Amino acid sequence: MKQSSEILNRADEIDLAAIRQSIENQLALEMATPSHAPERLRDAMSHALLAPSKRVRPLVLYLMTEPTGPLIEPALMVGMAIEMVHTSSLVLDDLPSMDDAKMRRQRPTTHVAFGEATAILGAISLLTRAFSIIARLDDVPPQLRTRLVSVLSEAVGWNGLSAGQELDIHGNGSPSEHHHIENLNWLKTGVLFEATAEMGAILGGRNEAQISASRRFAKHFGLAYQTLDDLLDNSGSSTELGKDVNKDEGKSNLVRHFGPRRAQLSCQSYLALADEALIESGVAPQPMRKLITQLFKKHALAQ
Amino acid sequence: MKQSSEILNRADEIDLAAIRQSIENQLALEMATPSHAPERLRDAMSHALLAPSKRVRPLVLYLMTEPTGPLIEPALMVGMAIEMVHTSSLVLDDLPSMDDAKMRRQRPTTHVAFGEATAILGAISLLTRAFSIIARLDDVPPQLRTRLVSVLSEAVGWNGLSAGQELDIHGNGSPSEHHHIENLNWLKTGVLFEATAEMGAILGGRNEAQISASRRFAKHFGLAYQTLDDLLDNSGSSTELGKDVNKDEGKSNLVRHFGPRRAQLSCQSYLALADEALIESGVAPQPMRKLITQLFKKHALAQ
Repeated sequence: MKQSSEILNRADEIDLAAIRQSIENQLALEMATPSHAPERLRDAMSHALLAPSKRVRPLVLYLMTEPTGPLIEPALMVGMAIEMVHTSSLVLDDLPSMDDAKMRRQRPTTHVAFGEATAILGAISLLTRAFSIIARLDDVPPQLRTRLVSVLSEAVGWNGLSAGQELDIHGNGSPSEHHHIENLNWLKTGVLFEATAEMGAILGGRNEAQISASRRFAKHFGLAYQTLDDLLDNSGSSTELGKDVNKDEGKSNLVRHFGPRRAQLSCQSYLALADEALIESGVAPQPMRKLITQLFKKHALAQ
Repeated sequence: MKQSSEILNRADEIDLAAIRQSIENQLALEMATPSHAPERLRDAMSHALLAPSKRVRPLVLYLMTEPTGPLIEPALMVGMAIEMVHTSSLVLDDLPSMDDAKMRRQRPTTHVAFGEATAILGAISLLTRAFSIIARLDDVPPQLRTRLVSVLSEAVGWNGLSAGQELDIHGNGSPSEHHHIENLNWLKTGVLFEATAEMGAILGGRNEAQISASRRFAKHFGLAYQTLDDLLDNSGSSTELGKDVNKDEGKSNLVRHFGPRRAQLSCQSYLALADEALIESGVAPQPMRKLITQLFKKHALAQ
């Protein structure tokens, strides 16, 4: 962990690549933990979890926590837990009965590589492991751990990711309604970003007003990020994205609905609202702004 | 909850039916909780969770906790959480890519009734809701809640139910090995029973030696219960079982391997070991013995 202990000395000099590397190391370490897990199941989990990724959620968690010495390892662990939950949702969304995707994170999707049964069991194992990791953070007071578990579990279930995916597949909201698209985007992406930022703020010991501002930051950040994803899906190649493109054909998104230019503007206005909330969240804003610039500049900010 | 507060006055007079009814009421109440969940998703969850069931795991949790006034509601809630996790695992095990079952708990399996995607999302929602319920038990000290979350999540993941199902589908252990069958039975059934009893003992405030004895009780109870299930699967009708029979054809189990008579004896010896551990667990043994007699007498104990 020493490597990351000097990262946050000066906000303007923050080394996002070094934090990202610490996250990668943590994930690799976790998957190498001795266990009696069947080899095939573990391989499927590693295939999904250790594939190339920007690790946006654990980075956001880390920056929202703004960890100092004793919190650096817990911040990496909670970020890892969120990345496991996110990966689990990707594995499930890609299944033949859902989006039937073939490529994800520059690899064959998990069910293509390991079969549906193992993909599903791997997703369940990643999901439940996340709760176990949080519950066992001995350096974090138990009342904070229970709150983290509560926030994360609510984000995944019938009011969160699962609801979003269900509505995406069987929803009957009119695709012409901007409000409907925004709600779906929020459930599919924003809700986990919101939980991520809330968990970072809780772990970082922020007060309730700041936690609430952190949620607001993440809601807008998440909507911007989903719009960026739609922009990439619309214009990008599968090489750049590392996953199937145009999978959403026939489904509604802001790009399809308003065209790329309006979607870009929409993305920028989400980011402006996110920045307002960021300032109220009690976190030094520069590191997060640096991350946002890195993520969005090529496709959504440059005009 | 009043209804159940007088249940445990005298062990020999314990009213298992009344506890079972309190569990049913709690489950129905939970599924009727207002939420923004998509109707179809909620219906799928209710279809699976509220179907006829003996509610063995929540009953075992309740009896192991031996709750008094303030613990009665938490014991029902934790039992409910375990039942949700168990139901979630049944929904997934029944999927076409796994056991491809058509009937479960006297109803069409969830994917038959709602399609695969909604079945999977319903299973995830039940699973994550379970962790949320435990994390929010305000009457239980946070350090106990984190321990409950940890025990439950470990029981589901790569060392638990998911590992068992993976080995059942893709395992290459020799079906002629008694040890292999026992290990598989333990992962598929015993591991969640073990977690159930451990959680009951933790919630009931037992000491570490008693918690360990509770785990031992449940391990043997779970092995006996899986053997009973195999006996029923071998000889029963789908009407009595409420699920597909002979789904395990070609797979190994003790009945197929040694014949029903040896399996019955094996079941009885598991139950004897369970009873020894029960006495060491610090719980009044009579209520649990009453439950065991009720569950096993017809097919495994009567000779």
